[in-house]
Amino acid sequence: MTVEFICVGTEILLGSIVNTNAAFLSEQCAGLGLSCYFQTVVGDNEERLTQVLKTGMERSDIIILSGGLGPTEDDLTKEVAAKVCGKDLQLHKPSKKAIEKYFAQRGTVPTDNNWKQAMLPKDAIVMENHNGTAPGVIMETAKCSLILLPGPPNELKPMFQECVVPYLEKLTSQVICSQTVKICGVGESRAETIVKDLIDTQGNPTIATYAKTGEVHIRVTANAEDKKDAMKLIKPVVKELKSRFGNAVYSTEEECTLEKAVADLLTANDLTVTCAESCTGGMLSARLVNVPGVSEVYKMGVVTYSNKAKRRLLGVKKNTLSKFGAVSAQTAQEMAKGAALTFKADVAVAVTGIAGPDGGTAEKPVGLVYIACYVKGKAVVKEYHFSGNRGKIREATVAAALTLLRECILEYYSKITFGKKE
Amino acid sequence: MTVEFICVGTEILLGSIVNTNAAFLSEQCAGLGLSCYFQTVVGDNEERLTQVLKTGMERSDIIILSGGLGPTEDDLTKEVAAKVCGKDLQLHKPSKKAIEKYFAQRGTVPTDNNWKQAMLPKDAIVMENHNGTAPGVIMETAKCSLILLPGPPNELKPMFQECVVPYLEKLTSQVICSQTVKICGVGESRAETIVKDLIDTQGNPTIATYAKTGEVHIRVTANAEDKKDAMKLIKPVVKELKSRFGNAVYSTEEECTLEKAVADLLTANDLTVTCAESCTGGMLSARLVNVPGVSEVYKMGVVTYSNKAKRRLLGVKKNTLSKFGAVSAQTAQEMAKGAALTFKADVAVAVTGIAGPDGGTAEKPVGLVYIACYVKGKAVVKEYHFSGNRGKIREATVAAALTLLRECILEYYSKITFGKKE
Repeated sequence: MTVEFICVGTEILLGSIVNTNAAFLSEQCAGLGLSCYFQTVVGDNEERLTQVLKTGMERSDIIILSGGLGPTEDDLTKEVAAKVCGKDLQLHKPSKKAIEKYFAQRGTVPTDNNWKQAMLPKDAIVMENHNGTAPGVIMETAKCSLILLPGPPNELKPMFQECVVPYLEKLTSQVICSQTVKICGVGESRAETIVKDLIDTQGNPTIATYAKTGEVHIRVTANAEDKKDAMKLIKPVVKELKSRFGNAVYSTEEECTLEKAVADLLTANDLTVTCAESCTGGMLSARLVNVPGVSEVYKMGVVTYSNKAKRRLLGVKKNTLSKFGAVSAQTAQEMAKGAALTFKADVAVAVTGIAGPDGGTAEKPVGLVYIACYVKGKAVVKEYHFSGNRGKIREATVAAALTLLRECILEYYSKITFGKKE
Repeated sequence: MTVEFICVGTEILLGSIVNTNAAFLSEQCAGLGLSCYFQTVVGDNEERLTQVLKTGMERSDIIILSGGLGPTEDDLTKEVAAKVCGKDLQLHKPSKKAIEKYFAQRGTVPTDNNWKQAMLPKDAIVMENHNGTAPGVIMETAKCSLILLPGPPNELKPMFQECVVPYLEKLTSQVICSQTVKICGVGESRAETIVKDLIDTQGNPTIATYAKTGEVHIRVTANAEDKKDAMKLIKPVVKELKSRFGNAVYSTEEECTLEKAVADLLTANDLTVTCAESCTGGMLSARLVNVPGVSEVYKMGVVTYSNKAKRRLLGVKKNTLSKFGAVSAQTAQEMAKGAALTFKADVAVAVTGIAGPDGGTAEKPVGLVYIACYVKGKAVVKEYHFSGNRGKIREATVAAALTLLRECILEYYSKITFGKKE
């Protein structure tokens, strides 16, 4: 089946916001095994929205519209969709009650135009909105399903998961399940080579790779009559991927991030961690602190941007800095050791590098980074060469630091050596 | 004149990448005074791309296509556009030379399929690519201009600025200039109220507001026969905005970020700064370190996530923590003072708050944040209530911390009190 997206909103056309809804819907629908060939953005304009909607309905089985369900006169997605389908709007009492309840919970009263949001197309399937006042709507014509979702991502995403996924599964009279194998420390092209034979011969399940900064995600998607059968198809492929990528697989859980996997590993081994950062300037600590509850393992960290800070806060030797420079394996190693000992942490990660745009030399170019990891007395240092602008180099450094941290803990505790490292 | 965008790429349809090119092109074209009513994403497929392109050419004056100019057989944007315009492709010798040079500089050799990138439509305007091998192309038909740009943002953006902007200015036989007034510490709705009369009566120049995290940007755009005349129209409006928003205006420079403005202010007053962070976990330091050359004013910072770290690294009193709690005005103030004295910085910013999702109570809910700023012996503390998920609360906190830091330095040095603060 084919799906297309129509995102409605002048603020996207003006470039005020990036269309992350389209990316979310694309990834989700691909995961559901639907083919998406077109995405359109159009403003809050009756004529143009009608034109785009009619074009879409001629060529796709499912149209997902996002945005334009608000209470103001500008918002007309629902009105246009109903008109195109030849349906009248009528008061939907449960939605009126839900809106009343939403405002009551917040101690405020709805304004007159809020009731517009309870006027819904006749015979439509209504999706309750737990995070806002605009209900979602599904309208079915003889050859097409229109799915109308609110624009704010924090309303659209849960509604999609709760209501649209089961609807689409029913529509295709199949259950579609997917599982993602998340890999760190293996480059995209190398990962693709490792799974090329699987992709070339794929059927059901399908296999797709997604490159993220410092990570590769491989999604395995199967359709079957029920969830159990779908998972039966997925399981052996996930097992095969795990065996091919070994310890480079940090998770197969949907919600798990690399920093979460690292935090869990630290918790499991009852370890505390500290970070000493130069060029990343706090980004590594900040990523660990993304993880709720990280306080069990992360207590403190430092940003030592100047040489003096590296000496004073971490005890890096004056001689090391003058002989090898601030960006060197030796300095990184002393930073990590100094951080672990000073802040009494079991594990320390230290980062020093040249993020640019200035400060590079022929010998030490922009993008050169050293990362050291100190685990209970043993330090490992690695040299990296990243490309891109200042922001990209720093992001890549943080991902590499998390990856090295994870590798060092795994190696320390299990003495496993990585088979598939680059 | 109207413009529309066609972004070509299966990886956008699959949700592997977010379509940031569309947001960039939208904002740029709005700034040039062009009206954009449609954006489309389509895959690398001849039939569908032809369909989308023909539809666009019927309704818009200018079509900007991005992506699909690569060397592989999948890449067919140029081939389809040439066919739709009835043009043949022919070898463009300067492009062939540029490709040879590009590879020679990197010490590698082009593969056979790279020469495909030098095959360009007859009579087209060719735009050199200084950051990749795919030249850009402009094709003109009787009623429409097609502008073909490479997909990678680091190639698309400079080519747009260098070649497309002058072309569009020539096309409209007008120069379009804009200037952005960047404001911090004033909420979006308040900012809109302050400029409502200007927006309601706007003509040439136009005024548009853009909400960013903790900031509002107001762009003033004028068209005229030459740059001098356009700037003459812009200048009084920018002056009026500056007078209405007072010190809340941190810059009117295109490239200036809030962290850059803060770093410049520190440099101008010969001040050093340090950060002591709890819930933001390093994000504040990381934003300051975004600024190249920040080492002049920023030497070090700390992340003190645990109570013990706040006591040990910053000298926060045990009694303060037990009596008022880690998330309190008192703790924030002691963190800032402790950081300034311990790390011998002129100015210190400290942040403590509850980012959630857990840890909130009725008295201290998720989103409660205290930020303290210590400038040469004087401390200011403010209480904030932010909403959203953990990430949003932390981002808002960082923007508020930079804003408070800026206000405190301005007040300390000039004794100016803000007239338009919220």
